[in-house]
Amino acid sequence: MNTPADVPNAQQNEFLQNYNKITQGTNRLMLFAADQKIEHLNNDFYGDFIHPEANHSKHIFNIAAQGRIGALATHLGLIARYGSEFKDVNYIVKLNGKTNLIETNKKDPMGSLLWTIEDIIKFKKDSGFNICGVGYSLYIGSEFEAQMLQEAAQVIYKAHQNGLVAILWVYPRGKNINKTNIDLTSGATGLANALGADFVKIKAPEENDYEISPFESLKIATHAAGNTKVICAGGEPEDTATFLKKLYEQINIGGTCGNATGRNIFQRSLHDAIAFTNAISAIVYDNKSANEAIKIYNSMAK
Amino acid sequence: MNTPADVPNAQQNEFLQNYNKITQGTNRLMLFAADQKIEHLNNDFYGDFIHPEANHSKHIFNIAAQGRIGALATHLGLIARYGSEFKDVNYIVKLNGKTNLIETNKKDPMGSLLWTIEDIIKFKKDSGFNICGVGYSLYIGSEFEAQMLQEAAQVIYKAHQNGLVAILWVYPRGKNINKTNIDLTSGATGLANALGADFVKIKAPEENDYEISPFESLKIATHAAGNTKVICAGGEPEDTATFLKKLYEQINIGGTCGNATGRNIFQRSLHDAIAFTNAISAIVYDNKSANEAIKIYNSMAK
Amino acid sequence: MNTPADVPNAQQNEFLQNYNKITQGTNRLMLFAADQKIEHLNNDFYGDFIHPEANHSKHIFNIAAQGRIGALATHLGLIARYGSEFKDVNYIVKLNGKTNLIETNKKDPMGSLLWTIEDIIKFKKDSGFNICGVGYSLYIGSEFEAQMLQEAAQVIYKAHQNGLVAILWVYPRGKNINKTNIDLTSGATGLANALGADFVKIKAPEENDYEISPFESLKIATHAAGNTKVICAGGEPEDTATFLKKLYEQINIGGTCGNATGRNIFQRSLHDAIAFTNAISAIVYDNKSANEAIKIYNSMAK
Amino acid sequence: MNTPADVPNAQQNEFLQNYNKITQGTNRLMLFAADQKIEHLNNDFYGDFIHPEANHSKHIFNIAAQGRIGALATHLGLIARYGSEFKDVNYIVKLNGKTNLIETNKKDPMGSLLWTIEDIIKFKKDSGFNICGVGYSLYIGSEFEAQMLQEAAQVIYKAHQNGLVAILWVYPRGKNINKTNIDLTSGATGLANALGADFVKIKAPEENDYEISPFESLKIATHAAGNTKVICAGGEPEDTATFLKKLYEQINIGGTCGNATGRNIFQRSLHDAIAFTNAISAIVYDNKSANEAIKIYNSMAK
Amino acid sequence: MNTPADVPNAQQNEFLQNYNKITQGTNRLMLFAADQKIEHLNNDFYGDFIHPEANHSKHIFNIAAQGRIGALATHLGLIARYGSEFKDVNYIVKLNGKTNLIETNKKDPMGSLLWTIEDIIKFKKDSGFNICGVGYSLYIGSEFEAQMLQEAAQVIYKAHQNGLVAILWVYPRGKNINKTNIDLTSGATGLANALGADFVKIKAPEENDYEISPFESLKIATHAAGNTKVICAGGEPEDTATFLKKLYEQINIGGTCGNATGRNIFQRSLHDAIAFTNAISAIVYDNKSANEAIKIYNSMAK
Repeated sequence: MNTPADVPNAQQNEFLQNYNKITQGTNRLMLFAADQKIEHLNNDFYGDFIHPEANHSKHIFNIAAQGRIGALATHLGLIARYGSEFKDVNYIVKLNGKTNLIETNKKDPMGSLLWTIEDIIKFKKDSGFNICGVGYSLYIGSEFEAQMLQEAAQVIYKAHQNGLVAILWVYPRGKNINKTNIDLTSGATGLANALGADFVKIKAPEENDYEISPFESLKIATHAAGNTKVICAGGEPEDTATFLKKLYEQINIGGTCGNATGRNIFQRSLHDAIAFTNAISAIVYDNKSANEAIKIYNSMAK
Repeated sequence: MNTPADVPNAQQNEFLQNYNKITQGTNRLMLFAADQKIEHLNNDFYGDFIHPEANHSKHIFNIAAQGRIGALATHLGLIARYGSEFKDVNYIVKLNGKTNLIETNKKDPMGSLLWTIEDIIKFKKDSGFNICGVGYSLYIGSEFEAQMLQEAAQVIYKAHQNGLVAILWVYPRGKNINKTNIDLTSGATGLANALGADFVKIKAPEENDYEISPFESLKIATHAAGNTKVICAGGEPEDTATFLKKLYEQINIGGTCGNATGRNIFQRSLHDAIAFTNAISAIVYDNKSANEAIKIYNSMAK
Repeated sequence: MNTPADVPNAQQNEFLQNYNKITQGTNRLMLFAADQKIEHLNNDFYGDFIHPEANHSKHIFNIAAQGRIGALATHLGLIARYGSEFKDVNYIVKLNGKTNLIETNKKDPMGSLLWTIEDIIKFKKDSGFNICGVGYSLYIGSEFEAQMLQEAAQVIYKAHQNGLVAILWVYPRGKNINKTNIDLTSGATGLANALGADFVKIKAPEENDYEISPFESLKIATHAAGNTKVICAGGEPEDTATFLKKLYEQINIGGTCGNATGRNIFQRSLHDAIAFTNAISAIVYDNKSANEAIKIYNSMAK
Repeated sequence: MNTPADVPNAQQNEFLQNYNKITQGTNRLMLFAADQKIEHLNNDFYGDFIHPEANHSKHIFNIAAQGRIGALATHLGLIARYGSEFKDVNYIVKLNGKTNLIETNKKDPMGSLLWTIEDIIKFKKDSGFNICGVGYSLYIGSEFEAQMLQEAAQVIYKAHQNGLVAILWVYPRGKNINKTNIDLTSGATGLANALGADFVKIKAPEENDYEISPFESLKIATHAAGNTKVICAGGEPEDTATFLKKLYEQINIGGTCGNATGRNIFQRSLHDAIAFTNAISAIVYDNKSANEAIKIYNSMAK
Repeated sequence: MNTPADVPNAQQNEFLQNYNKITQGTNRLMLFAADQKIEHLNNDFYGDFIHPEANHSKHIFNIAAQGRIGALATHLGLIARYGSEFKDVNYIVKLNGKTNLIETNKKDPMGSLLWTIEDIIKFKKDSGFNICGVGYSLYIGSEFEAQMLQEAAQVIYKAHQNGLVAILWVYPRGKNINKTNIDLTSGATGLANALGADFVKIKAPEENDYEISPFESLKIATHAAGNTKVICAGGEPEDTATFLKKLYEQINIGGTCGNATGRNIFQRSLHDAIAFTNAISAIVYDNKSANEAIKIYNSMAK
């Protein structure tokens, strides 16, 4: 792994340390993505089929501390309010956000920048927490794309200037976007590369215009990403085995470098969530097969 | 109570002092919320059933000075114009505001930031007043949500940087919001937690989609708030006993940590208003029953 | 008169000097308000029933220098271009403005900030002129209210920080405002108080919803203003006696603290305008009756 | 000529030098206004009845250097690219601009600020060019009036702060402007005075609502301008004698202080353009009659 | 070649070095323009008739390093991620961009500024890369023209302040633009000159309103550009011979100073792309005929 050239010499050690912490020396990333308190309000935290523990914010910190993850991605406010008890967790600070109260067909999405890189750097120094990087959600095709493209480019540039890893969430979304396919997804990953991101989180498309399997087509997008590493969003909750098998194929056929999973993890009890992070990390970091990962999960979960 | 990690070491004493002043060492807050001069113009201060004393701005300062409250929340202009005579009052400076002249169905709400944290810190130092914290109203679901989310996050972060307590007023409001229920309210409190607020002021929803009582359902929202403390708005004026009983249940069943009351207090004569603050504070700070509080009120009011 | 607490100690003498210059030690203000070159373009300066002298900008400075006024309120450009010849005039710099070319039913009003407080302070120091304070027009209910509320709050705060008196022009105006009545006017004055203004200029409403006289009802608004002083706009030109009688009632029944008059003064010849300012000031500053003031006018005017 | 009071003492010599350079000690200005490369794209530079030399940008510099003008007003980019060869020319830097590609009935005009006064001051110092002042186009009545009014006020203030002459182009234009007449033009010149401009460039109206000649009515506008000097735009190309006669009447009856001419000059061959500038300057600076000026032109042009 | 006067003395050597590097001492420029990862997402990089190598971002760097070009124009993110392996390439940093997801008939184009000149200067110093200049895309006639005109002017001014070459991409585009012809193109090039650009990239119009050949008419636009040099966009892929012949005519009849080519180069295999850059450079830099260039290509390509 070369450090990008927008990381100044004086920050290269810092950057490499951050990068290695979250990738565990593998160039892959198991990201526990839990920014839904703003993005989805309480929808993902309370309701049928959701474990009652999920409703309290501390649940995700308990999972992050006791499970095996590369980093927990969440908003600064939560980290500021819980981090003192969870100093060993690696954090990716999600810098922007929006609620789900306005539907896309009413108004195109715009996630506003809540904290600056300068804020994060100061916070890291003051708190001594393991802030390893930052995340930004970019909705290409939204009528607010111009503002978000600018913010995304600046977030990445300034993160690198300060030795932080930069992760972009890229979603084609807006009144003018009818469907996503592999071409659009490849555009999203290539754009993340052109903006200088270290990782790009995408939602793997279900369809493509080519006569190849979804995982084969995913390879087009991971290739178009150049040396920016692709991680796939977990998406809607699904059963453990299906999830783990899909993850294995994404990585080993599709060429992705890990995962970004939230709901599939934190809607479980603490115990099961821990087991699930271990299973995921076995695939991501230890190159285990899906079946081995399932075994790991089953041996731990109740 | 842990200080949040975005309060730097050098400001932790300051923060704890501010926090303890307004909570009186209880982790609860009796907030006298009087920002209506901007929010509702003169509607709450003059008219039938409103005591004539309410029409003059000094009324709220007289109540704050002589009644038992945790803090008075109001705009900086008023504090600047009256504070010299009321140096012992604890103040929460409400930083943003809007009038009620444009209805939500005409234009979504946007309360603009009137003063910065830097202004407040300078003012506190110059005046020597007991400025304990700041407040910000956030309308989630408004088409201006992006700007307000950003301002709210920054207000909280910078308040903490300077040792001030941060209180968020969160209201789902806008053309796209049809109703509020406990899920939405839980979203509001959880979002306040993710933004890092110390307290979140909400309007307790009248309805929920679950077969439980309103106070039981409120518990879902106070749980979703994590370690951010929930205080309920007083809302429309109502009779004293009803108010106090409801407050007792909100705290003791619903899990809230106090109240944010304005009109129910200041529309009374000075004498009665003082009595009412004492009754409220007995529930909030002394853990009295509703009946005990009613007795306190009746023994003092005319 | 207490200085507001947002005037730092080091600026309190400066503030009191400015305040006393324009109030002549009475807590009242005779404001010669002449910002119409921008607000109304040339409509108020040339035409039937307007004295030809009014067409040249120097006319208002001649009146200000030779008549008896508390201060001349006008835009910085004019003060910069004429002030060197009129160094003894007290000035209130009107900081924002708009033309009348777009009607309210086409677009809600927005008067942009033309100069900052920093500009004014520098200009005062460089020129040595008697810059005593600043003015800002705020259109509540306009769709641009959010921006103007913010600017108004900042103008007042920064004016006070620098020892300048702050005067707010507050007008409810916009597509969503159908009528003004005393409740709305009371809202305007109370809001000015909450923003911290020293004076608020309003247009006295012709109607109210109560069975009291217009001047009695005006008292509600001056009471709602708290310790912010209310001055009434002169409005459309009217005959001298009517004007002076109304002014007397506004002050002595309605509780206002002076006037803000422009067209009624400057559309006269220099000689008559001077006489008229003397008559107004006799009511405002010397507590003369309307009849005495009329006599003063008649003895001087041609 | 008094220097305006917003020119600090330390800059008054600089201001007077700049003012005297462009007015040649006469309080009048012959402005060669050539900002059309942005404003009208290539429409004024190539086509039937336009001399082929006009198509190359250097043409206007050749005219400016060899003809008799007070100053050349054009955009900074051109001055930066040609000025080294034309160091003796006096320049007025036009600071804003827009193309003509969107018609007013589609969108109201907005000319964005391309360079700041700070840029101009730095450029002047670095290059040693005769930068005597700046120009700004203001479209009153446009829905973007608020932004432009602010920029115009700031441009004038900051120009004066740095000893530069400030010239305002004021045009009433927008969907809400149906016609211009002398009242509106007087409003434009009076507004320029209230903003503090040294010169205001207007388009002389063809009509007025009074029973007086166009030149008599122009006098109303030059009177309303106070001590801001009025110069008339050249407008559409017209024949030499008509142009010069009209210019003479504008100055000697209408009370204007010069001209702002572009197309009428640069659409001619270099030789004829030089002759034409000399004829214009004879009227403006030497107080020659129109016939004398025509003779000057005829004796030189081919 | 004179350095523009907005390049300060202290930066003139730097500017001349940058200019000479990319023009190879000829005043002409062979620009390998590869900003499509953002502009067109993956459309130009994967699909029928596109060589599979094109899908990976490194392809363009391989071409830039091994082919003969003046400079590679692309976004900073890519340069940061690949530049360490390609230190000898001359770079033009494309500063703004937008995706193609919103069609012009839905919303006018706006390419937001992703990095500032200050970022580029810092990056150049930190990395030691051959950053020779910057590029900015300006859509005249778009409803966002005002913002882009301002950004373009500032980008050019600040680039020159720091010794960087400034290249403008100018495209008339928006709902109000029906067609481009030579008059509009001449307006685009003249505007670039008025903004101070060193080079302007245009799309050569297919039609004109004059009875002359396309290349003759192009001459009008290159003449209107004054001393700003015009380079033509490559546009849609076309066959090698046609491309090279057209390029020759553009330069030798139309008066352009080079080319800006992307897709026509990078959609080929590395081997063929290298051959093609050599053929183009032979015309641009060595003044070879189209046939000689075709021979060069054929002798190398497979």
